[in-house]
Amino acid sequence: MRSAHPQNGGETPYQIPTHPNFQSTVSLRKLRRFNYLILIFRVATFSSSLASFVFMLTTSRDSDPSSPRWYHFDAFRLVVGANAIVAIYSLFEMVASVWEISRGSTLFSEVLQVWFDFSHDQVFAYLLLSADSAGTALARVLKGMDTCTAWSAFCIETDISIALGFVGFLFLGFSSVLSGFRVACFVIKGSRFHL
Amino acid sequence: MRSAHPQNGGETPYQIPTHPNFQSTVSLRKLRRFNYLILIFRVATFSSSLASFVFMLTTSRDSDPSSPRWYHFDAFRLVVGANAIVAIYSLFEMVASVWEISRGSTLFSEVLQVWFDFSHDQVFAYLLLSADSAGTALARVLKGMDTCTAWSAFCIETDISIALGFVGFLFLGFSSVLSGFRVACFVIKGSRFHL
Repeated sequence: MRSAHPQNGGETPYQIPTHPNFQSTVSLRKLRRFNYLILIFRVATFSSSLASFVFMLTTSRDSDPSSPRWYHFDAFRLVVGANAIVAIYSLFEMVASVWEISRGSTLFSEVLQVWFDFSHDQVFAYLLLSADSAGTALARVLKGMDTCTAWSAFCIETDISIALGFVGFLFLGFSSVLSGFRVACFVIKGSRFHL
Repeated sequence: MRSAHPQNGGETPYQIPTHPNFQSTVSLRKLRRFNYLILIFRVATFSSSLASFVFMLTTSRDSDPSSPRWYHFDAFRLVVGANAIVAIYSLFEMVASVWEISRGSTLFSEVLQVWFDFSHDQVFAYLLLSADSAGTALARVLKGMDTCTAWSAFCIETDISIALGFVGFLFLGFSSVLSGFRVACFVIKGSRFHL
């Protein structure tokens, strides 16, 4: 499939193929597009999980002491925690991504960076999905009880927060596909560049 | 990293490299080991999810009509459904895996097989985790209510079922890493063999 200059790909594993010049320019442009795509997913993940986190926190702004609070429920605490972790991680990955686009090299060493990105994407995607599913189950139980009749705003806000968490999970899932592809490139070809 | 006979890898994308003979024998042995590893994960996933499915169904063997049933709870229905789907899928994948080990070729065409395996592994892993997380949240809510005081056997059995579901998810996750690697090999080298 990809028979062009295999010698180069084999002998200089940490370099983008640099000859012939035309091929190199095309590769660089594709690589740049790939990196921008990752950055877009990182920004989308960050926005969604931050919004989810903030929405869940604002459910407790009611000054009435008898109103339900998110921290009274295990699953909602998990939603808040998971979204906070994912937001912080996405912020870091945004910095790493901008660094890579502007300087052409990874923030850590290449082997560490590709494995770090992929493993964290995977673990945090599962964590976020798990938290949001638990949150959904609890929200459904609350709907069947008096809580949502008396405090409908609370239930609506937690629903929105959980929905935003699922959106964040979706973008994180896309990121993990791309970072998984980079790991596979690295394992197979000795370089994160597939082009 | 992997500079041996790149011409061959480029020109015969659907074949294992066949020369020199020594290299080919080592490759075949490694490939066989890789396929056996996938088969082991498939069997483990099948056993766990089938056990989880059966455990959840047996919670309703009590003839007392007032006892709780798994199908009265959304999240437990989801656990049963997800585990049934994963068990059936794993059974099919076991057949596909045995076929590949015994005949040396994939059940479908190669491109279809690698993408089918990877996409279904990913989707079903997320489905199973989501169902089990929802089940866990519900189980925790039930523990805080009268249900688990009056019907402790029901709660213990649902806990075991959910735990088995998580074990199934773990093995499915491992399978998805391996099938993801095969997809990446296919995209990069035009063959599911990385060796």
